Amino acid sequence: MATFGLIEYGDASPEVRAVYDDIMATRKTDRINNFWKALASHPPTLRRTWESVKEVMRPGALDALTKEMIYLAVSASNGCDYCISSHTASARQHGMTDEMLGELLAVVGMANETNRLADGYQVEIDPAFRAPA
Amino acid sequence: MATFGLIEYGDASPEVRAVYDDIMATRKTDRINNFWKALASHPPTLRRTWESVKEVMRPGALDALTKEMIYLAVSASNGCDYCISSHTASARQHGMTDEMLGELLAVVGMANETNRLADGYQVEIDPAFRAPA
Amino acid sequence: MATFGLIEYGDASPEVRAVYDDIMATRKTDRINNFWKALASHPPTLRRTWESVKEVMRPGALDALTKEMIYLAVSASNGCDYCISSHTASARQHGMTDEMLGELLAVVGMANETNRLADGYQVEIDPAFRAPA
Amino acid sequence: MATFGLIEYGDASPEVRAVYDDIMATRKTDRINNFWKALASHPPTLRRTWESVKEVMRPGALDALTKEMIYLAVSASNGCDYCISSHTASARQHGMTDEMLGELLAVVGMANETNRLADGYQVEIDPAFRAPA
Amino acid sequence: MATFGLIEYGDASPEVRAVYDDIMATRKTDRINNFWKALASHPPTLRRTWESVKEVMRPGALDALTKEMIYLAVSASNGCDYCISSHTASARQHGMTDEMLGELLAVVGMANETNRLADGYQVEIDPAFRAPA
Amino acid sequence: MATFGLIEYGDASPEVRAVYDDIMATRKTDRINNFWKALASHPPTLRRTWESVKEVMRPGALDALTKEMIYLAVSASNGCDYCISSHTASARQHGMTDEMLGELLAVVGMANETNRLADGYQVEIDPAFRAPA
Repeated sequence: MATFGLIEYGDASPEVRAVYDDIMATRKTDRINNFWKALASHPPTLRRTWESVKEVMRPGALDALTKEMIYLAVSASNGCDYCISSHTASARQHGMTDEMLGELLAVVGMANETNRLADGYQVEIDPAFRAPA
Repeated sequence: MATFGLIEYGDASPEVRAVYDDIMATRKTDRINNFWKALASHPPTLRRTWESVKEVMRPGALDALTKEMIYLAVSASNGCDYCISSHTASARQHGMTDEMLGELLAVVGMANETNRLADGYQVEIDPAFRAPA
Repeated sequence: MATFGLIEYGDASPEVRAVYDDIMATRKTDRINNFWKALASHPPTLRRTWESVKEVMRPGALDALTKEMIYLAVSASNGCDYCISSHTASARQHGMTDEMLGELLAVVGMANETNRLADGYQVEIDPAFRAPA
Repeated sequence: MATFGLIEYGDASPEVRAVYDDIMATRKTDRINNFWKALASHPPTLRRTWESVKEVMRPGALDALTKEMIYLAVSASNGCDYCISSHTASARQHGMTDEMLGELLAVVGMANETNRLADGYQVEIDPAFRAPA
Repeated sequence: MATFGLIEYGDASPEVRAVYDDIMATRKTDRINNFWKALASHPPTLRRTWESVKEVMRPGALDALTKEMIYLAVSASNGCDYCISSHTASARQHGMTDEMLGELLAVVGMANETNRLADGYQVEIDPAFRAPA
Repeated sequence: MATFGLIEYGDASPEVRAVYDDIMATRKTDRINNFWKALASHPPTLRRTWESVKEVMRPGALDALTKEMIYLAVSASNGCDYCISSHTASARQHGMTDEMLGELLAVVGMANETNRLADGYQVEIDPAFRAPA
């Protein structure tokens, strides 16, 4: 059960409804995910988070699918159950196949292994990797 | 200073040299990163890790650049200094531009923010996100 | 199901009962949380952890509410479901309002975002932030 | 060395200067931290992050000092060197004493210990901690 | 529900069955854990992960029980529910007693506390701890 | 530079000196690590942390070397530079060989990989791993 419960459209204030409307229009859906219904208990966080997500996830130098896969990779690495579920679903909507997901998770696992090996072996950074002054 | 120091090619056993040779041949370079020189103190880990990285990072359903960016995203999320440095460099070698890196880190930051909001608000997973039985 | 199950007061050894009694007396309650009932399977850990929590969470230069909110912030950042639940409840008992919780989680989310940006951009520490020698 | 180096005011575009000006005006300082100079390589992230930080850290139901301490607690828990340094400095500017910092870090350490105990013992959440339906 | 569901032996391809057969032979069991059944959706990850786990967990300079306890310690520290459950079970099969598990989790908790204190206090590494050049 | 600098024996209060004396007597050394000198700025945290570490790390059902290796495994997994350095040194003092360290870090890396795979594939816990009611 979410801390504050979930705020449905019918029970929402005009400020919250305006965000819900923008989410549904931007995503071309008539469904609001539980994440947003939970954040709606603190409208400034709902509005700011949605505005940021909308801006950050918009296609740019990286396309929408690549962005979704990076989001999922971070969420899998953090072990956030909700985020893994929701971004697996949205990456698939953007075209991620089963084979792509298999490879994505293989990279996430491998990166977590080598991150700990690099830290554990106390490896100093190669001069070649440092940015030029 | 790495825990065991770094094992240079000239000081390496034949077993280690064979891995170094394969790294240089696969990556078309004559340089071995400190990470591998540090792992060389435990040859089974050097060999196994290199074989895994070579297999996982090979282009497949995801191209090499996308895989490098996912690797970098996880490393930035874990705060592994060495891995951030080395995979920023290698992602750039595979074609990541400054603008792409800017967007990648924006997604990483955003995912970490929303991961904590989803956990903190104790949001339950939407039925729509669950895999079909 | 907790690894060892939960040890109820009636089934507890005198050593465990003494800790339970002190928890109930200190917190002015007649209920023992599952956390303590689970730790009771290893009485030295139960005793030491309770003594430490009691000392650390006692009002001092920081009041009890501020301490509870810091505890909750760390727990939300770590994604520990049990700790988020229990410290949301106890912070509320100490006076945290819904609005305060909304702002707390906004700070937690923001800190996680900027932590990853600082690491990902490999930002060097400003001389002004270093402690004087 | 930051990935893209640091962009000084004199070298900044008008878009970046506008953010720098707002940071200095809001914080009543004439210094820009390295964090912002590093983010300036990707102006949308600079602008969005600053706008979010400004909104989130503004005094509200929680005062500015409490917010800074929560930020520092998360940063210490994440092991982000830059963020620990900078937010230790800014929390002190908002009035955090040495004694308060000592207690803050004690809570952070304790929360990390008990978070792992709760997870490691697989403790189920008490019904009393669940939000009412 | 696992992302791809679980692939049972009867529904598995010959490639997957070969891994399942090797798992059951190596572990002297006729049961396949859900972890492997979930990975079976991406056979290269199933095969590579099993080969790595088999090699890494084989008794060597460290015996099998010590390795299982280190695995469990990392899993408890990461808060991975599945891994805590499965490695608590397998460490017990290798001889871990309740008392040993109690002490293991006490060390895990303590290490997490002092890790955050060391980072939070920004402690510089003692020269004596650095590896000789 | 540690946040508060390091408090040397000669400059320490009687309360701090008593802890330093006990550390040196318990560990049969005449050197105090920087960690304790940094914590000395908050004497209650110095005392409580030392008392806890002394109790937890004392040989019991697990011997001192196994406890040190678990401590190091958690520290490598958390990426705590100070703790990796200091506990690599102390594990070696308790008899950890280079080969044992190599295997330890291999397990740490592997556990981090499989932790993320288990989370990323959303694997449900096998009924067999659940504790009996």
